[in-house]
Order: sequence, then C-alpha cells, then structure tokens
Amino acid sequence: MKHPTLLQTPTQTQFFSVQDVANLVSQVGIAATLTRLADYILDDYRRWQDFDKCARVASHSLDGVIELMPIADAKTYAFKYVNGHPKNTRLGLPTVMAFGVLADVATGIPMVLSELTLSTALRTAAMSVVAARALARPNSKCMALIGNGAQAEFQALAFHHLLGIEEIRLFDTDALASRKLMRNLQHTGLRLSACTSIAQAVRGADIVTTVTADKTNATILTPELMEPGMHINGVGGDCPGKTELHPDVLRGSAVFVQYEPQTRIEGDLQQMPADFAVTELWRVLRGEAPGRTSDGQITLFDSVGFALEDYSALRYLRDTAFELGLGQRLLLLPELANPKDLFSLIRPASRGQADAARRDAEPALASAA
Amino acid sequence: MKHPTLLQTPTQTQFFSVQDVANLVSQVGIAATLTRLADYILDDYRRWQDFDKCARVASHSLDGVIELMPIADAKTYAFKYVNGHPKNTRLGLPTVMAFGVLADVATGIPMVLSELTLSTALRTAAMSVVAARALARPNSKCMALIGNGAQAEFQALAFHHLLGIEEIRLFDTDALASRKLMRNLQHTGLRLSACTSIAQAVRGADIVTTVTADKTNATILTPELMEPGMHINGVGGDCPGKTELHPDVLRGSAVFVQYEPQTRIEGDLQQMPADFAVTELWRVLRGEAPGRTSDGQITLFDSVGFALEDYSALRYLRDTAFELGLGQRLLLLPELANPKDLFSLIRPASRGQADAARRDAEPALASAA
Repeated sequence: MKHPTLLQTPTQTQFFSVQDVANLVSQVGIAATLTRLADYILDDYRRWQDFDKCARVASHSLDGVIELMPIADAKTYAFKYVNGHPKNTRLGLPTVMAFGVLADVATGIPMVLSELTLSTALRTAAMSVVAARALARPNSKCMALIGNGAQAEFQALAFHHLLGIEEIRLFDTDALASRKLMRNLQHTGLRLSACTSIAQAVRGADIVTTVTADKTNATILTPELMEPGMHINGVGGDCPGKTELHPDVLRGSAVFVQYEPQTRIEGDLQQMPADFAVTELWRVLRGEAPGRTSDGQITLFDSVGFALEDYSALRYLRDTAFELGLGQRLLLLPELANPKDLFSLIRPASRGQADAARRDAEPALASAA
Repeated sequence: MKHPTLLQTPTQTQFFSVQDVANLVSQVGIAATLTRLADYILDDYRRWQDFDKCARVASHSLDGVIELMPIADAKTYAFKYVNGHPKNTRLGLPTVMAFGVLADVATGIPMVLSELTLSTALRTAAMSVVAARALARPNSKCMALIGNGAQAEFQALAFHHLLGIEEIRLFDTDALASRKLMRNLQHTGLRLSACTSIAQAVRGADIVTTVTADKTNATILTPELMEPGMHINGVGGDCPGKTELHPDVLRGSAVFVQYEPQTRIEGDLQQMPADFAVTELWRVLRGEAPGRTSDGQITLFDSVGFALEDYSALRYLRDTAFELGLGQRLLLLPELANPKDLFSLIRPASRGQADAARRDAEPALASAA
C-alpha cells in the first residue's frame, strides 16, 4: 500500500523567538498564560509514569554551568538548553538564558524550536504555584519574596493571580532590584513593600519564596525565621554548590521535590544525608501521598527546575502559537526528494540529474509500500 | 573599573540553515571542505585532554533513538541533537537528522545554531579519513563501500580526495541506492562498480567501509572475507543493538575507537567482553600509541560518531561562514537594557516605565564596577 500523504511529512521546524513568546503573553494576558501553563504542568505531573526521566546533564565551569535537560513520553521528546552564570549581570547579560526543542519520537523531527528564557521564568512560577496549591495553607494572603531579580515578578504575579496572594514583602541585597520589581508591578493590585532585612520580610508571611542568584552555599533562611504553618517555595537553590536554606530549615519541614535523584544533587537537599525523607510532588498531585497534613506544619518545596516543566511549557507554546498564528518556519532540516540522496544538497545542479533523482525516488518509495 | 565594551556583549545567535551549509560547501568545494574539516578534527583530537567528555544521552523508542551529544573545553561548549530512525526513509524522511549549537563557556551564550544533517555526513567522512590515514596501508587505492545510503557519497569522496582511493566497489541490498551513488559521483574521476555480493565488493580491497542503516545485529562482514592488511572503517554499528561485524572480525583486528566508554555501549565493540583491548585513536594521533604495526595486520576503526567531531564541525562552520558572510541572526535570546529586568519583555509599554528602566540599569551596572 502506498502512503502518498506520508511523503508530505513536514521536515519544517517552527521557531518561536523571544518576541513571539512576548507577543503570545501579551495577547493571552499574563494571568491567563500562567493559569494555562499551570494546567499543562499539572496534567503532565499527573501522568508522571509516562515519562522517560533523567537528571540533567551539566557542564560546570568556573563561572557557571551549561545544562541539557531531556525528557520524553511515547510520543513527544523535549529538551532544554539552559545556562546559569551569576556574574553575567555585570556584563549586562541575563544570569539564565535558555532555549528548547519539542520533537516527534516516531521520526525524530524537531517540530518546535523556541526561546525559553522568558518561558523558563513563566513555567518556574507556574510550577511553584502548582506545588503551593497542594502545600500552602488555604487562604494564604501574604508572601515574602527574597531575591528580586529576573524571576521575581513572575513568581509574584503567579501567586497573586493563581493563589490569591494580596501582599508581598520584598527583600534583595540590591535595593535597585526591589525598586525595579515595585515599579513593574505597581498597577497589579498587589500590596508591595520593600523590607530592610530578610527577617522583616519573612515575619508573619504565609509563604516564603526564595529566588536568589548567587552560586554559593548561602543561608537565606535560618530556623529562627520559620513560623508554624509557613510554606517555603525554595527556588534559587538549584545547582551543586548553590543553596539557600540552613539544613535545620529542611529538618523542620515536610520536604517535597520534583524528581528526587536530581534534587539530591542540585536542590537544597544536597546538604542533607542520602536517607533524608522527601516526597515527590507528583504523588501528592495524583492523591497518592499527603501534602500538608496540619495548619501548623511547615512545608517546603525544594524546586530545582525539572525537564518536565519545560516539556509542558513547550507544549503550551506550540498549541497557543498555532492558535494565534505566531512563529516562523526555520530551515533546520533538509527537504529531500529521495531521503537516501543527502548528497543531492551539494550536487552541482543539472536538469538531467534532478530528473534522474526523481526517477530513483519513486520506485524506492513504492518498494517500501 | 567600568567595562563599557562588555555592555555590548552580543546576545545574538548566528543561524546556519541547511541551505547556508550547502552554499558553504559549494563555495569552498567538497574536496577543500573535507580537507579542512579533517584538519579541524585532527587539531581537536590532538588536544583530547582539554575536553570534558561524556557518552551521549540517548532516548530510545521502538523505532529509533534521539540523542544529545555535549562536549566542552575551557572556552567553548558544543552539543548536537541527532536522531536515528531507520524506517524514516519509508516516510520520505532521512534516517539521521541533526542540528547543533556552539556556546560560550564564560557566559553560556549560544553563539551558533546550525543544521548538522549535512554536516554530520561531512564530519563522519572526514573523521573516517583521519583514522584511515593513521591505520590503513599507505598507497591504499581500492575501497569496498557496503551501504550506499545517505552517507555513502561523502565517505567515497573523502577517501578519494584525502587518501588517494581511486576505485570503489559498491554493495547495497537496495540496488537503487548504489545506482544513485554511481550517478552522483560519475564525474569525480573515481572508478565505481556495483557488486552483486558483499564478498565480491570486499575481495582484494585495501579498505572496507561499512555504513549500513538497519538497527539490527547484522553481520555485514564475516571473518572469511578478511584479508591480511585490510583496514576496516566500520561506521554503521553505532547504537545499542545495531552492529555490522561478526565478533571474530573484531578478534582478528587491531581495534581503534574514538571514546572507549561510548564505543563499548554503541559500537561493534558492544558484542565483545568488557576487557577486549582497544586503543583510543587520539593516542595514535598524538604519537603516544602505535597505529598499524605491519603491512599484514588488519586494522579496524569502530566509529560511532563522537561529540568532538561535531565540536570540530561547528567550529569549522562558524569560521568559514564568517569568512563567506553566510548565515543569519536568530532572536533566540532576549536583549535587555537591565539584565535583572526580564519582566520588561512583557511589561505593557509606556514611555515613563522605559525611562525608569534605563535609570535603574545605569546605577546597577556602575555598582558592579
């Protein structure tokens, strides 16, 4: 049997630039974007067992790290390229830059290539809210936000729009970063105040989000600052040698992680013994493990950023960009009349040869029918 | 100290499409392209110890595999995305498609994004010749080429132009593939003949190149076919469950590999016990280990394709495309006035805010001086 339609299998890759993703967010709206992203993430976490998972592949250097984060289910493969270079801001560059690909498992075709710098900030915030919905006290209204850099606005808006946070207390060692955040979010309805210490920001907060950038073993949160019932959304301790929490903060909390093997290497968990108990979040999201068990419990989401969130983000971008007609085609793959004739790409053109190539191609395809 | 020039650090990524690489080869010429690629590969293999190496990260599925192949030295990071789907040709698609990235280790910026489908065929052929120069008998003139698919012309031309092969005997189970190859190479000066069996093609050949596509444990070469002094360039056995050589062919040969840990998993070597002796090629290329030691010895290059060749190919493409003015800018990364203000990408535009962002950015950069 001949499959004429299959001969049309497209080898084009759809490209979403930074501007495409910014346009997408602007057309959909930031609240709706974060809401839908959280839905995509939740859907994918609930089918956790469908995925072929591995810890990311990191290449460490003196000033930073470059990582590849692959993941796949039976139909779709995704990976993200992402760097982490805290000193980049001194050069006028972002600390974290990323792009990613969504590919077809059946053929290997990279269907989508997208910017993921902006998208990583969006998906990280959406992931934090997916966790907080399961772990924070209901009716949480006040959040401390420690670290007011590139990702902070996204965290603030996700917790505001998706979880009902009304007040955010800011702290950053760089006061200009807090000022930038306050101006960016001045018309959002959030009550924002800049604090002069971490303790001032954290006191009485329902949720504490830490999203600092330094690649050091820092102690942003110490056990004295913890209050019963708090939920800690620990985002910035996400790479070997980069932690934010005092070990006793982990000991005093119920700790939830994305993918245990990766978090043991990269999360604040890297400070703890190998048998320190944690719960993978997907089990809570599927109702197979408890989340918060009492109002007084301290819960901690030790977020490191897992490939599955990027898979979800790329799916969301693909679906939404298609609806909105955003993106452009990228000539990343060859279009060949005969797939065994790669050489045709560099063969000096001549009508006779092109005709002959077509003659060859037809029987070759028919014979595979 | 202020570094005003560093503020200009470009975040643009240079993109080379399939057409750009085809134009590059057409402008440079295929012989010169392969010659220079072989030089780049040789240079990089001779500084083997400079590289942070790992076996590629593979995601296997029923019909194929998708792999990421990262490698880095202190300055430059590279990775390739590549699939292997033997059944793709039935859909009119190439078996192997690839693209890759060259990035700056100091900042994490992906500087180059390039097609690597065509480039992989070029670099694989160049790598084969780098190995054959060290391992084949001097004055080799006749090669058997088993498997006449997408990569075959590249192997043929590399051995012709760079090693002096004058006659090539072809065999493929698909006679149309051999016919395609003969037509593609009819004006190159090579003497080409299609054979009706592997034995006929191999008999009396100085070099035997196997580059078949089936993802099975095949025995393209059996020990009876081996003749004293032959060099075997085994290219197609390059993935778990995909081999081309009878184990006794390996036992009867001096076996050379790119990166032993990867070849033990992926090469024809996967059939042999873990202590079967092999030599990493870089040691031969640096003069630290012998290559061929006698005219009668059978040598085998168990090629699987290693990330370092892609690093070399990407370097070559970057340098040459720059000289020729090929490629285009890709808006993969954000351009931010203030690197901590990622949110500015989606902030509703207003003159007042843009001015404020600029005011923030300046002191923030000065304070890092």
